[in-house]
Formats: sequence, structure tokens, C-alpha cells
Amino acid sequence: MTEDRLIELFRRIAKHPPTSLRVGIGDDAAVVRPAGAREDWLITTDLLLEDIDFKRGWSSPAQLGHKALAVNLSDLAAMGARPRLFFVSLGLPSECGVGWIRSFYRGMTTLGGRWQASLAGGDLSRSRSGILISIVAAGESTRRKVLLRSGASPGDLLCVTGTLGKAAAGMSLLEVGRVRGRSAAECEALAAHRTPEPRCEVGHWLARRGLATAAMDLSDGLSTDLRRLAAASGVGATIDATRLPVFAESAGWGCDPVRLALHGGEDFELLFAAPAPRLSQLMRRYPRSFPRVSIIGSVTGQRRIQWRPAPNAPLQSLEPLGWDHFR
Amino acid sequence: MTEDRLIELFRRIAKHPPTSLRVGIGDDAAVVRPAGAREDWLITTDLLLEDIDFKRGWSSPAQLGHKALAVNLSDLAAMGARPRLFFVSLGLPSECGVGWIRSFYRGMTTLGGRWQASLAGGDLSRSRSGILISIVAAGESTRRKVLLRSGASPGDLLCVTGTLGKAAAGMSLLEVGRVRGRSAAECEALAAHRTPEPRCEVGHWLARRGLATAAMDLSDGLSTDLRRLAAASGVGATIDATRLPVFAESAGWGCDPVRLALHGGEDFELLFAAPAPRLSQLMRRYPRSFPRVSIIGSVTGQRRIQWRPAPNAPLQSLEPLGWDHFR
Repeated sequence: MTEDRLIELFRRIAKHPPTSLRVGIGDDAAVVRPAGAREDWLITTDLLLEDIDFKRGWSSPAQLGHKALAVNLSDLAAMGARPRLFFVSLGLPSECGVGWIRSFYRGMTTLGGRWQASLAGGDLSRSRSGILISIVAAGESTRRKVLLRSGASPGDLLCVTGTLGKAAAGMSLLEVGRVRGRSAAECEALAAHRTPEPRCEVGHWLARRGLATAAMDLSDGLSTDLRRLAAASGVGATIDATRLPVFAESAGWGCDPVRLALHGGEDFELLFAAPAPRLSQLMRRYPRSFPRVSIIGSVTGQRRIQWRPAPNAPLQSLEPLGWDHFR
Repeated sequence: MTEDRLIELFRRIAKHPPTSLRVGIGDDAAVVRPAGAREDWLITTDLLLEDIDFKRGWSSPAQLGHKALAVNLSDLAAMGARPRLFFVSLGLPSECGVGWIRSFYRGMTTLGGRWQASLAGGDLSRSRSGILISIVAAGESTRRKVLLRSGASPGDLLCVTGTLGKAAAGMSLLEVGRVRGRSAAECEALAAHRTPEPRCEVGHWLARRGLATAAMDLSDGLSTDLRRLAAASGVGATIDATRLPVFAESAGWGCDPVRLALHGGEDFELLFAAPAPRLSQLMRRYPRSFPRVSIIGSVTGQRRIQWRPAPNAPLQSLEPLGWDHFR
């Protein structure tokens, strides 16, 4: 049983959606159209558990608050929504007192404030078994334009924002006890793991201009997430290892940058597809202040996910070796 | 540090709400008004943790699914909203397989279907420490009429639906290992604990007719929740023990029915206030098929919560001895 099969099960369970639900299970967020509303509202939720999704000693409470909200804002970003509200449910062991709670909320509200997302409610419970965080975030579309996972067509080019494998490179440092970076590259990798920046501005820009045919955020690793985007669109994909925006510096501490770019999770960069002519238009107008975009491959008509490890090497199957809670 | 003090802290943190947020932290649900929408949307979230909020051996997976959704629908009911969507995040230990998951979802979707609430998304994670359930439910107002905790005035009468202390009476059976009832009363008490019925129809009816000045659901026990309603309204309250709709049968297995009605949690009945003239109008029109309503006391101008244990006894302070995760 994999996570994707469970999601398929839930999709069958939720077979009679109300008319206000435009998009339900299977995309980054649900899309709700309240009767009469000018915009669609997007709602997403993520669960973070201690020792599964994070380790307490690896981040400060404020960093943990930042990250917990960031992973939710990233889902909204992937669909082009502007964040509006969030709800936080916390299960806390007794050693997390008021000081811990204040710092955690400061981390969340500082990030939320940057993207106009306000705390609107939540729930609190004591926990006998570690910290658990459940966040719901709601955002608004712009002119009802929403980026789905399902619109990619054969021939579209595949793009990603920023650098891939940087958060995983940071985690590899934490795994060997290096909680403070000794170089700029190490600090950058640790920050990518601890305080990822959701790509709200890019997602919103892409959606508003209607330049992408499909998009999602990279939370579980490119090899796992690309397969999801392709499945939702009913297509295949080929990517080119030499075009991946890898975090080459991680080789300095024993990582394989290409492997981390393919399978490392939690980069929270955006993956999107666009037809070649539209993409050149996109690249011309793309603001310089935004994280760079790299073309990493293309969408194919055969429902296979493949990659080319080197310029003249034959195509190989790209196995989904990213994160899966249930594999 | 009590739960109410933490909520006060969060309310200060969330001090700049966006214009779309009509009601934020401190009521049963947040009230959102999407630009242009005909109705308000209400959003609530509740967290349930194994061995804190429930015990695995006490309920079947389907009963647990029912209850997890019911506590959220009850929050929507308390504000008069019609349920629409829900999102479920689950952390599951490895022994909860596909069979468990199917049953749990069946319990949820059966209850959801009765109130037109559809599963719209969620998240899944493995858990190393018991089952955890985080649900978000969203509902729609009718003609933008929403019941808040904050509208009660001195002189209003206080009412509750149904019977109080029945769920706690059921829990007292489970605590001594009686998982099957030996009498109708025991079965009823166990059902009240395991599969509470959210009072959606009553809440919606009250809100639509504008007959109540304030309302909330009874999740943590009357003595704790009444204090919250009074604090939100800036008033006090007096209740009369002899008028409480207690579950007298629980005396048969050693419970104190009045004590459970005052302090036992999880009844998920509605508590509401209404001026006396409006209340008699309400009682005349109140549908016979709905759970009965009892007048249990009145709202006062002094900010004290008191009760009268017997007809001619002096008033006593009613201490909040209901459930508090943080006391």
C-alpha cells in the first residue's frame, strides 16, 4: 500500500462532491467556489509529526513554526492562490511550555505576515508522544485562475524553480549532528531544510498570466512528485540530469547532488509545464527578482517517467524513490 | 496555564485579521466572508489523540470516524451553519491497515452524508505513537445569520438541547471495562459517548429564525463551556440544578447524574441564550422531531457563574471542572 493508492481510495470514497467543490482530493489543495463569490477559495492541510517529519533538536520552535506554515503555503502557491488564513492544531508534550508556544507562533506569524496569511483558529491538546502539528491554510484565486496538476500535454516543457536537493543536503548535515553550518553552502542547505520559502509569488504570477498548463510543489522529491503530475495529466515525462538545477556544493560533504535533486524531498520549489512558445514568452516577462526557472525536460505521450543520466546516455526509467509515508 | 489563557494569547497574536475574516479565534468556528459571496463560510478544526481524547479499545474504527467528524460538525451546528466540506489528516501506527482506514472513513462519510458534508481532502502520515486525527470542517451560513458566543444579555434565559451527562455516563462504563451495555440505559450512554449526534438541525433552525442571542456547543462540560459563553458576552449566569436535563439512569451504575451534567464533557448538545419573550415564541414553533430544549437558568449582569443545587438552597459558585487539556 502506497500513499498514492490510499489517495485513490479516498477519491473513490468522496464520489459525490457538492457543487461548491470544483476540485477535491488529488491536487495540492481543494478548490471551493462559494455561491456568488468573485474568487475561488483553495484549502490545503498538512500534518507534521515529531520523529517522522521533523526532529525536535534540529530546529528552533520558531523555525518549526515557519516550516509548518511554509509547507501549507507552498501547496497554495502551487495552485496560484494568494494565502489568506490559516488554522493550527497542536498536540504538545508537557515540556513545551508557553515560551515554546510563543516562539512557534512567532515563526508562523512572521512568515504568514509576509504573505498576508492570518491566524484564524485552531485547536490545542496535550500529547503523550511528541509534538504534532496540523495546519490548514486557505487562499484566494486571482480571476478564478487556478493551476492544476492535470493540464500538461505531450510536447510541453517541464520547469522547476530554484535549486533541487538543497533541503535534503541540509538534512544530511543534521543527520550527522552538524546543526551549525561551517561554510556558506552548509548554512544555505540548513536554512533550506529548516525554513523553506514557499514560492507564492511565482505561483501567483504563473496562474494570473495563464502561462503554465500544470503545476505542483515539490514536497516528496521530483521522482515521486513528477509521477503524480504526469498521472493527473494522463501523460509521461522525460527529464535530463544535466539540466537539473542541482545543489553541487553538497558533494563537498559527501552527497550525490543529482540523486538528491531527483529523490530528496522538501525543496518546496514549483514544478510546472508549459508549451514551448508560451514558455519563451514567460521567460521574457519573468521578474528578475524571482527565483530562477530551469527547463529540466518535457512531457511525453507515453505514460512513462524516464530520465537521461548523461547527454548521450540512453533513457532510463525514473523510479519514485522520494518520500512515501506508507511504502 | 489553562486552555482559555492560551486561546487569549493566540487572539493577541492574530491581531490584524484580513477583511474577509468576520470572526476569528475564540468562537466555535471562524467566520469567513469571501468577496462577493452570498453566504458566510464557517471553518472549524478539532484534534483527537489516542489515549488523550479516546481509547482505541473503546470504539470501533467506524465509531471513531463518526465521532471525529461529529465534534467538528457540532462546532458548525453551534453557529447555525450547514455543513459542506471536511478535510481529514490522519497519523496512523503500522497496525492500522487498509481495513481500519476503510472502516474509519465509512463512519465519517456515513455521518457526513446525513448532513451533506463531503470529504474534500486531507493528509496521511505514519505515526510511531498512536492514532491521531485532525479534522477541518467548513459550512455555509443561511442569509448570513451566524450564532456567536458573544450576544447574550442580562435577563436572557439559558437553554440546552437533549440530555446532559449522558456521554460521561457512557465513558464511566468504558472505564470499568463495560464495552457492551446490559440495559437500554447503558446502551444509550455508550452510544452517546461513541457516536454523538451533532445538533445541526437545531443550530440551523435557531440561526435562521434569529431567536437566540448567543450559542455554543457543549464539548468540555457545562461548567467550563458556560463560563466561555458568559465571558464572550461579558455577562454572568445562574443555573438551577433542578432544571438540568440530567441522565438520571446513570445513578444505576454509581454515577452522580447532576455532577456529570455540570462537568461531564462530550455531550455535544447546544447551549443557547434567548430573551424570555422570544423564547416562548421559539418554544411554540420548535419542531417536535427535534431534541427537547430545557431552560436551565438565566444570564445575569454580574460576571459570576453560579448554580443553585436545590430549590431553596443559596447560590454557589460553579467552578469550571470540565475538561481542560492544559490545566
